[in-house]
Amino acid sequence: MANLIEGEVLQAFATYATIVVLKMLLMAPMTGYTRFTRKAFANPEDTAHGKTPEDKKKMLRVDPDVERVRRCHQNDLENIIPFVIIGLLYALTGPDLSTALLHFRVFVGSRFCHTVAYVFTLPQPSRGASWMVGLISTLSMAYRVLSTVLVL
Amino acid sequence: MANLIEGEVLQAFATYATIVVLKMLLMAPMTGYTRFTRKAFANPEDTAHGKTPEDKKKMLRVDPDVERVRRCHQNDLENIIPFVIIGLLYALTGPDLSTALLHFRVFVGSRFCHTVAYVFTLPQPSRGASWMVGLISTLSMAYRVLSTVLVL
Amino acid sequence: MANLIEGEVLQAFATYATIVVLKMLLMAPMTGYTRFTRKAFANPEDTAHGKTPEDKKKMLRVDPDVERVRRCHQNDLENIIPFVIIGLLYALTGPDLSTALLHFRVFVGSRFCHTVAYVFTLPQPSRGASWMVGLISTLSMAYRVLSTVLVL
Repeated sequence: MANLIEGEVLQAFATYATIVVLKMLLMAPMTGYTRFTRKAFANPEDTAHGKTPEDKKKMLRVDPDVERVRRCHQNDLENIIPFVIIGLLYALTGPDLSTALLHFRVFVGSRFCHTVAYVFTLPQPSRGASWMVGLISTLSMAYRVLSTVLVL
Repeated sequence: MANLIEGEVLQAFATYATIVVLKMLLMAPMTGYTRFTRKAFANPEDTAHGKTPEDKKKMLRVDPDVERVRRCHQNDLENIIPFVIIGLLYALTGPDLSTALLHFRVFVGSRFCHTVAYVFTLPQPSRGASWMVGLISTLSMAYRVLSTVLVL
Repeated sequence: MANLIEGEVLQAFATYATIVVLKMLLMAPMTGYTRFTRKAFANPEDTAHGKTPEDKKKMLRVDPDVERVRRCHQNDLENIIPFVIIGLLYALTGPDLSTALLHFRVFVGSRFCHTVAYVFTLPQPSRGASWMVGLISTLSMAYRVLSTVLVL
């Protein structure tokens, strides 16, 4: 069976979608790492490495650093998955390669900025602005999809 | 490069998937709006507009209206993304246009009803019923996918 | 219109993606069931079946069993959706059927194990290992996608 991802726009989409989904997947190990360094877990079975029962109980807590990484992960889910869905439909409408690359690069770049701004607590509007830039890229692709294929 | 979204079923899918994903994306500004009007934020860096340190500290709180919008957004993630995944596979199995449109319209309509019922706190079973109607549409499409392409 | 899901790899992908998304959709009724049996709800309008106002107020609470099912659901969202996105792109790159089936079966099997380990509180590392196995399958597919179609 041959590679069915033909055409440079689709190949570019596959590349950027994979990169940004991998970035999102990295948030889970980052949460795990923060849980271990802060000793803050959500499940009793995750505290088995504690020495005494009091140790284990103390580790069942909510930690602000862990919650920050989790909110960043949640924001990724809320924005990256819509980008992938709308981006695939957009790539299938046959846009110019340069226009498509602009959309994909702006979105993926904005999400890396968003993660840095969130995890390292940069002052606003860095986080808000990077979120907004990514959203505008997704909305612009959605506009092209609807204006190309609208069947209600 | 030409538009690859050919066939009315795929075009209808692209239309309804884009509309319902845009609806989901709107939940984030709605959360932001509720956070600003209720003065209830999750991140210290989001309270920089507070005048005194006490003001800023008071704004770091959990607000029931904000949590309601966030639960609605979460329910969208849990239901709209499965619809898009299964709906794309369903559209590719070549169903009748009228049957496909019925599934897409019922699902998308049910999610708008669900959001209204959730955000405006309508009495149950309005929220539960609209969730169930959307789920049944997704399950019905999943049944067709599995009965058409099953390769285990 | 004919079935466009041609080729056994794509049909296998459609099968396993649908099965694992259905598994994810089942987490919502499981949360609902746990909320009802534990009498622990998040929305005031969901406690209308309480007899007295005190009854209703007591039902608005956070329950550890409900939170466990919800964390399991969230972990599904964080892992199953990336699998579907990357798995679709992977299936389109034209891998061997046997290699593709191995990836799909390992991932889907790992997620069923993960759910059992989470919901029934099996001792670690059962939950962590099943999460890791699924992640490795997704990463392996992402590697093939990027090495086949990279257009930056």
